[in-house]
Amino acid sequence: MLQSKIFTKTLRDSPKDETSKNAQYLIRGGFVDKLMAGVYSYLPLGLRVLKRIENIIREEINAAGGQEIFMPAIHPIENYTTTGREAIDVLFHTETQTGHRIVLGQSHEEVIVPLVKKFIESYRDLPLAVYQIQTKFRNELRPKSGIFRGREFLMKDLYSFHADEDDFDRYYKTIQQVYKKIFDRAGIGSATVRTFASGGTFSKYSLEFQTITDAGEDTIFLCERCSVAVNDEVKDDCKNTCPECKKPLSHEPKKSIEVGNIFPLKTRFSDAFNLSYKDPDGKQKPVIMGCYGIGVTRLMGAIAEVHSDEHGIIWPESVAPFLVHILPLSKAAIPEAKRVELSLAEKSIPVLLDDREDKSAGEKFSDADLIGIPWRVVISDNTIKKEGIEVKKRSEREAKIMSVEEFLDQFL
Amino acid sequence: MLQSKIFTKTLRDSPKDETSKNAQYLIRGGFVDKLMAGVYSYLPLGLRVLKRIENIIREEINAAGGQEIFMPAIHPIENYTTTGREAIDVLFHTETQTGHRIVLGQSHEEVIVPLVKKFIESYRDLPLAVYQIQTKFRNELRPKSGIFRGREFLMKDLYSFHADEDDFDRYYKTIQQVYKKIFDRAGIGSATVRTFASGGTFSKYSLEFQTITDAGEDTIFLCERCSVAVNDEVKDDCKNTCPECKKPLSHEPKKSIEVGNIFPLKTRFSDAFNLSYKDPDGKQKPVIMGCYGIGVTRLMGAIAEVHSDEHGIIWPESVAPFLVHILPLSKAAIPEAKRVELSLAEKSIPVLLDDREDKSAGEKFSDADLIGIPWRVVISDNTIKKEGIEVKKRSEREAKIMSVEEFLDQFL
Repeated sequence: MLQSKIFTKTLRDSPKDETSKNAQYLIRGGFVDKLMAGVYSYLPLGLRVLKRIENIIREEINAAGGQEIFMPAIHPIENYTTTGREAIDVLFHTETQTGHRIVLGQSHEEVIVPLVKKFIESYRDLPLAVYQIQTKFRNELRPKSGIFRGREFLMKDLYSFHADEDDFDRYYKTIQQVYKKIFDRAGIGSATVRTFASGGTFSKYSLEFQTITDAGEDTIFLCERCSVAVNDEVKDDCKNTCPECKKPLSHEPKKSIEVGNIFPLKTRFSDAFNLSYKDPDGKQKPVIMGCYGIGVTRLMGAIAEVHSDEHGIIWPESVAPFLVHILPLSKAAIPEAKRVELSLAEKSIPVLLDDREDKSAGEKFSDADLIGIPWRVVISDNTIKKEGIEVKKRSEREAKIMSVEEFLDQFL
Repeated sequence: MLQSKIFTKTLRDSPKDETSKNAQYLIRGGFVDKLMAGVYSYLPLGLRVLKRIENIIREEINAAGGQEIFMPAIHPIENYTTTGREAIDVLFHTETQTGHRIVLGQSHEEVIVPLVKKFIESYRDLPLAVYQIQTKFRNELRPKSGIFRGREFLMKDLYSFHADEDDFDRYYKTIQQVYKKIFDRAGIGSATVRTFASGGTFSKYSLEFQTITDAGEDTIFLCERCSVAVNDEVKDDCKNTCPECKKPLSHEPKKSIEVGNIFPLKTRFSDAFNLSYKDPDGKQKPVIMGCYGIGVTRLMGAIAEVHSDEHGIIWPESVAPFLVHILPLSKAAIPEAKRVELSLAEKSIPVLLDDREDKSAGEKFSDADLIGIPWRVVISDNTIKKEGIEVKKRSEREAKIMSVEEFLDQFL
């Protein structure tokens, strides 16, 4: 894609109303635009990242047997009076012209349970895992940290339905592995820890996936031995020991952001909607449920936060808007740049070509650092003389002159 | 995909609260589920159709230079007081915990104009076309006809920005061709006519794309000579003649549903937000705008309405959830069915395999007709004896016995 054709432009100055690094870089780089506090548009570059993150999640959840659906954002209030959640403070309320009270979905237990109830009859219909990637609304009192805590955000929410606790436990463990794989693929695996947190009313603990970053709003304590952590909110309940290996927790608090969570729901919502199944002996039994969220837009913010330096973002290859950023530094370099782009296109490698003629080399370099595409290829009168291209990884300092063929070999 | 694994089941009886064929078949077939009037969930089969329609639209709009973005659904009321549209009756209103009034987007002029204003400075930044495929909300007094008139629906909305009227006119004509191609590819080209309709306050006519179907809520009159129509609402203004070729309009009214529309917006919204650009002489001029909508979920309903018979839907190949539906009619037929599925998979042909063991042949046949996958392949003890498979197009009456190779040749 030609950079001159993308309608967004990079901004030199950081927006004054944003303090988090992710928001500053994502806005300055033209990935997102702020409409109001906690409400953002995703611009061409940002939408490309978002779709790549979505696809990683979709592939892994499909592989774990999840069936994708798409549920509405507006819900009748009756479903919330049924579950007793009509007074949650983060619900946005509105009503139809005929006076029917409705709320905006901040989660979808109230929709998915009556929906699957139409299709679950016997034990043969279980287990079942259904998910969506869909926009959620939360009437946050204080939206903050860019796309970390929004009033409107994209979420993957998966719901699982089981005949008994054992089957639920198996799936609950499976999804922990799936989540690990998703965060690994998205490039934040090593910064993300499985964290014990408050379980709410229906189980002792829930599990969160917390990405360690100073921009985070949570505080966690790592286990000194195993690979889990404990959220500050349940540290006392745990008596400062790891609930898994029973060793002491570190005394050093870490700031982190919750990118995913998994909740055992037991029969909390099945009971409310009378969701039951007939077991092999013909007895009606309540369905056991779990729910599993990943904040898709928040994940994008977490990646930008973890993978960045003082110049801008450093996208992991798996979610980068383009894989290669070609910077021709003179008019003579543009035809050569287009030839290199063609060679990359033949290998299906997505390229952004900075063909802007009104920008200096310095401006092109600093925009490339801000946007953060993993590979930068500079083509100048000098590289043409040397019959090569100058290749630099965004994450490294050194550039190398090499032939186009040598560069292509990197992507075998 | 194995049909036994899809969690939805076909329903024998039509829902009592739905009168339109599209809603009845889409609900009975397990494509959609109704949460409340005008609000539907898209289930695994329905979501597959929806994504195929989305992709046709995306490909054609990208080819016409559209840049895809994703804007929020909740908007600050101030943007509507700026354009004077804060009192539109179909706006859903709500507010933040801090008392900030917000509305749910029923269209996005109030968001896109301030957004592009940040990036449009000079004539060099024009023309520009930006679009999204995103959920819209309209507080309809009477949602009806299934997914035709919803309170929540998926829409493709494209906005174009031009330096002058001539450039706008060129793009306006381009998009008419693009829309024709989209509706052709989606299988409703021959049932869909370009229709002159009310232009609102800022131009004499707008153009609608109306699909002729008895379930439609609009009334149009076809030109007796050329390929356009006139909406009932402007028939008198047109003096019963075609605005394009000036020949008389047919006297016979046709029921139809509006699947797309294109509006000349002129400077209606540019003026409101003071969106201007610097021309080559350094003079500030207002930007000329157009907007172009396609109701994505409504299009799905229109296809189901147009392509159906008394037994169910007949999906066009371009949007079908699967291309081939394999029906093994005995236990012995299942391994053979899986072999055929594998041959099709090697050619990347998506297959639904009805492996349900508790269904009779008759039930499988009637479900296949209801779901409406274009090609039906029956494998029975009889076809195995004949060393072939029984192939029938959903749109035809006659089935043929042929070899798997002969069948595969259909997809070359």
